[in-house]
Amino acid sequence: MGRLLKGRDVAFYVTPDGSGAWAEYAVTQAAVALPLKKGVSDRDAAGLIVNPVTAAAMLELVGAGDAFVFSAAASQLGKFVAGLARDQGKKMIALVRREDPIKLLKELGAEYVLNETSPTYAEDLERVLSKEKPVIFLDAVAGSASAQVHKAMGDDARWIIYGKLDTSPAEILDPSEMIFRNKSVEGFWTTSWASNTSFFRKLLVFGEVQNRFRDGQWTTHVSTELPIEHAIERLPQALAQPDGKVQILLS
Amino acid sequence: MGRLLKGRDVAFYVTPDGSGAWAEYAVTQAAVALPLKKGVSDRDAAGLIVNPVTAAAMLELVGAGDAFVFSAAASQLGKFVAGLARDQGKKMIALVRREDPIKLLKELGAEYVLNETSPTYAEDLERVLSKEKPVIFLDAVAGSASAQVHKAMGDDARWIIYGKLDTSPAEILDPSEMIFRNKSVEGFWTTSWASNTSFFRKLLVFGEVQNRFRDGQWTTHVSTELPIEHAIERLPQALAQPDGKVQILLS
Repeated sequence: MGRLLKGRDVAFYVTPDGSGAWAEYAVTQAAVALPLKKGVSDRDAAGLIVNPVTAAAMLELVGAGDAFVFSAAASQLGKFVAGLARDQGKKMIALVRREDPIKLLKELGAEYVLNETSPTYAEDLERVLSKEKPVIFLDAVAGSASAQVHKAMGDDARWIIYGKLDTSPAEILDPSEMIFRNKSVEGFWTTSWASNTSFFRKLLVFGEVQNRFRDGQWTTHVSTELPIEHAIERLPQALAQPDGKVQILLS
Repeated sequence: MGRLLKGRDVAFYVTPDGSGAWAEYAVTQAAVALPLKKGVSDRDAAGLIVNPVTAAAMLELVGAGDAFVFSAAASQLGKFVAGLARDQGKKMIALVRREDPIKLLKELGAEYVLNETSPTYAEDLERVLSKEKPVIFLDAVAGSASAQVHKAMGDDARWIIYGKLDTSPAEILDPSEMIFRNKSVEGFWTTSWASNTSFFRKLLVFGEVQNRFRDGQWTTHVSTELPIEHAIERLPQALAQPDGKVQILLS
């Protein structure tokens, strides 16, 4: 497999036993390196694995035509997911905590956007859940609000945690639902996905991700570009921006 | 499949859409009725599904030669599991809350018996877990003590809930372990197992269960036998016994 990649530009995962990604040279396994297509910019390539591949890999968990719940949907990951979901015929039930991002997420492709701070949130959620019967809950929050969502979902609901933004407890509110309604709590980590997915399947997913950047459907939102000689001095200020990533340029 | 069972004595599961088990006549699906072997007493047959089949079905989750954690192990279910596990070459890490049952559980076949109320419990648990690396935790408690056990377990640990004896919260203490250590929380229900398991596989499991009763390795511990004409009057007193089941006799 390594031979196929020799001399090519790649994006790669950091394996648990490998070097870090922020290095001029890095050692990783061929199985977690994915070849880059022509026309994908370095800027996009640098951010390709963490958010975009995660978005595409997590959507593999959702069946064709099915709905799924997605928390913290105003995130960059949530924005990637919205468009990809629509194009794959999957209905995103996006949860946000402000009114601002609702319009954008709907434009991007979310089928529903619910505001958790709205006085009608509980009813809105229940109505959408009972209509769409989603079984997948992709969750970056993992706090008590997430536990409520999992409890509100129906039979076979899989609470799939990929982040822990909330410090409140992630309690299983009704363990009998694990027994009699076949609910579960699991995790998602792109590195595990990459290790457990065939190289062919990964190439397909990665190809779709790169096409979306090349064709302009997705863009990496960079709030600040910093030449490396100013990185130390200006990084704190750049990181204080509310949205987007900071990119450090080597030349 | 129904034809194979016609006219035979059977034990059966109550299906979600079926009649109850405490009836002279009952309707159920052929797929959840299991034929009885000669030599199995009515007393044992009456209790065959709930505890014994559950014990055998749950042990199917444990790999050959592997260890597993089992909470509330002084229960009748725990006692069934201890002997079956030993005979199948699986190491039971039995958790109890008193000193009394330790000797009996070891005699029955548990590889380890740990007392949760012992001052050395945390160290004992950690030592056994790091030696045996169990990935299955069969749990009837589903409270904070269970959450601690799941947290103490290593990679890939599956917390499998089949009861909720404890009223304290079943919290996922460290959601990042779901992500980076591939841990999960699931449920087990014998009725679901029966629906999702081939008839052939169920016959094998059920055959093993009946053999153990016929050969005297397992017995149904009945604390009181009540003729049905005295059932109403004497049942409250009989149910107040600390251990064993009450059996109501029709004749």
